[in-house]
Amino acid sequence: MKQTPKNTTRKNFIQKSALLGAGLMLTSTTKLFSTSKTANSMGTNIKSKGYAGNDELGNMALWNFERRPIGDNDILIEIKYSGICHSDIHTIKGHWGKQQYPQVPGHEIAGIVTAVGKEVIKFKVGDKAGVGCMVNSCMQCESCKNGEEHHCETTGMVGTYGSPEKTSPTGITQGGYANNIVVTEYFAIKIPASMQLQYAAPLLCAGITTYSPLMKLKVKKGDKVGVVGIGGLGHMAIKLAVSKGAEVYAFTTSPSKVNDIMAFGAKQVIVVDATEKLKPWFGKLDYIISTVPYAYDMSNYISCVKPYGYFTQVGQPINGELTINNFNMIFNRVNFNGSLIGGIPETQEVMDYCAENNIYPQIQIIKANEINDAWKKVVNKEARYRYVIDASTI
Amino acid sequence: MKQTPKNTTRKNFIQKSALLGAGLMLTSTTKLFSTSKTANSMGTNIKSKGYAGNDELGNMALWNFERRPIGDNDILIEIKYSGICHSDIHTIKGHWGKQQYPQVPGHEIAGIVTAVGKEVIKFKVGDKAGVGCMVNSCMQCESCKNGEEHHCETTGMVGTYGSPEKTSPTGITQGGYANNIVVTEYFAIKIPASMQLQYAAPLLCAGITTYSPLMKLKVKKGDKVGVVGIGGLGHMAIKLAVSKGAEVYAFTTSPSKVNDIMAFGAKQVIVVDATEKLKPWFGKLDYIISTVPYAYDMSNYISCVKPYGYFTQVGQPINGELTINNFNMIFNRVNFNGSLIGGIPETQEVMDYCAENNIYPQIQIIKANEINDAWKKVVNKEARYRYVIDASTI
Repeated sequence: MKQTPKNTTRKNFIQKSALLGAGLMLTSTTKLFSTSKTANSMGTNIKSKGYAGNDELGNMALWNFERRPIGDNDILIEIKYSGICHSDIHTIKGHWGKQQYPQVPGHEIAGIVTAVGKEVIKFKVGDKAGVGCMVNSCMQCESCKNGEEHHCETTGMVGTYGSPEKTSPTGITQGGYANNIVVTEYFAIKIPASMQLQYAAPLLCAGITTYSPLMKLKVKKGDKVGVVGIGGLGHMAIKLAVSKGAEVYAFTTSPSKVNDIMAFGAKQVIVVDATEKLKPWFGKLDYIISTVPYAYDMSNYISCVKPYGYFTQVGQPINGELTINNFNMIFNRVNFNGSLIGGIPETQEVMDYCAENNIYPQIQIIKANEINDAWKKVVNKEARYRYVIDASTI
Repeated sequence: MKQTPKNTTRKNFIQKSALLGAGLMLTSTTKLFSTSKTANSMGTNIKSKGYAGNDELGNMALWNFERRPIGDNDILIEIKYSGICHSDIHTIKGHWGKQQYPQVPGHEIAGIVTAVGKEVIKFKVGDKAGVGCMVNSCMQCESCKNGEEHHCETTGMVGTYGSPEKTSPTGITQGGYANNIVVTEYFAIKIPASMQLQYAAPLLCAGITTYSPLMKLKVKKGDKVGVVGIGGLGHMAIKLAVSKGAEVYAFTTSPSKVNDIMAFGAKQVIVVDATEKLKPWFGKLDYIISTVPYAYDMSNYISCVKPYGYFTQVGQPINGELTINNFNMIFNRVNFNGSLIGGIPETQEVMDYCAENNIYPQIQIIKANEINDAWKKVVNKEARYRYVIDASTI
């Protein structure tokens, strides 16, 4: 169960960074800068526009704002596509704590590099690049050195939106429902040439968040894996587990999703319209990953795992609070745990893995002015299965 | 982590049982029978008296009742001592579900065998014997065959009190706050001659309930083990973990327990009078066992375990409901689980282990008419650390 530290990638990267010092390179085609190329290299803010929430009502509206200048280790990405995650909705609506507004959400970001700082080594102008759920960490602690920046032990990870950030003109990080983003290159993910950007975006949260716990559990051929909640994360969990050879059992409350789920490769779909539907599954599965982003009657799902197996809750409910029934737990003997996205090396790994194995999310591309409608549909379980914003419409 | 099945003891026992058929043996000294020795052997009920709850108010009062006749595989135990467990209080007060009354609680029972059925092979009249938390199960399913009768997959285990039982004259099992008990010999524990009965009693719930998860985790020399809640179970968890060579860190809300806890062998006591007291311990311990029998701010205690370690909740709150914060869980990466007592072979194991290693609970012997007062003290965290009823005072 214990994850093997993967620190070689990170160490190699840091060593290479210290050896190189290319000058700031700017693309000549971008129209994103507030002033000239030179001004940027001298530290001018980057003009940006995006869709922001202004209060807990969560109505997203167009907003012009600025990002920090491109630092020596930064890249500027012209965003092409940005996925909509239920986390965006929870955050803006204050379900996970008080927020600063205006705030641009979005942490499934895919685009093209249009400028690089003078010490950038991983990207060049014109490369495909992505940004997931974090944009910085201390880079010094053991977790950061081991490629688990999301578990940074000192400052904690800096989230892609809504995290305090001194270098940001708005005082907080601003996310991906926007036309561009400035990010430290280490926290950007290389998107293989073969991967279309609209499919790359959802891998940066939905992909890594489900891939990471599946890898920790070393899911393998023949394992019986349950997936609870078949939305953006859940449908990726199915595809990823199937790709590893697992027999996947999908639990959904939406009968209309059954055919899709079977097409994703699931062995069986259980439409849970009553708790009784779960009873035949008690003690049957090796492992369950739950993506449900609300508090729900979790204990009966947990009981579907074999004794001494694992149940991982990746969906984050309002205020994080879940009720667990310990009568069930003492009898089912299941280990309950949570899992938070994944580190940068592992996010690169899932991106490369999906490109190599032709694993793509099932998406619906929308225009920026459809974001508010899409949010309602996400909450109402109508997404099939990930809305992706075409950033050219912002 | 996975428990190794221990089915050899059970299988051997069943084989031996089939080969033997000694006649019903009765002690001549007992005054417990309703009629003569012969009558008993012919199936007469056993007269009994005990302290029963009559409703959810939980006032315990003397009650005369009958137990089933001694069957071929049964033994009759003259109870000498009976421990008071917080579970008794929860059950009688209906905290864990509706109850039938009158009901005699008590599942830490130690006494002397005064009669044996004709097929009994494990005991003879005069032996020390104990009864813990269960008195029957299907004895046919895989769990029962593997000595995990508490996880019986067909009928479920039959609890020592309050469980429906056709053979019981009262319709439910009646527990150990009484002067005698009839029990299938397989579910009785042999108490070594060197073990005094008043110390044996608490091992049958407090002992096994803490021993079993410690053994599943293979707690060994140098492991940093936390114990949360230092009452009847918690103080045994400390003693048992210390005996295995662990460094034990005890978390209590009672400053008055500190000296006792150090005497039990703990390396350090943390008096948790504010959540802040827990923060220095975040991520520090290999394992935690929590005995707290109420819902409490569990998540911060869970965070005291190292990533990928285990936190076992053995205390059962009202209705079993616990709140868990998944924000903590995704960051602490701890596995939460529950644990239910232990099987009969393992209960015998902890009894023998404690006798061999001179591990005894710290007890206070009380008279039967002090039960109601003792219950209040248990709830008020005033027990030091297990009340044991002197059954001769019933």
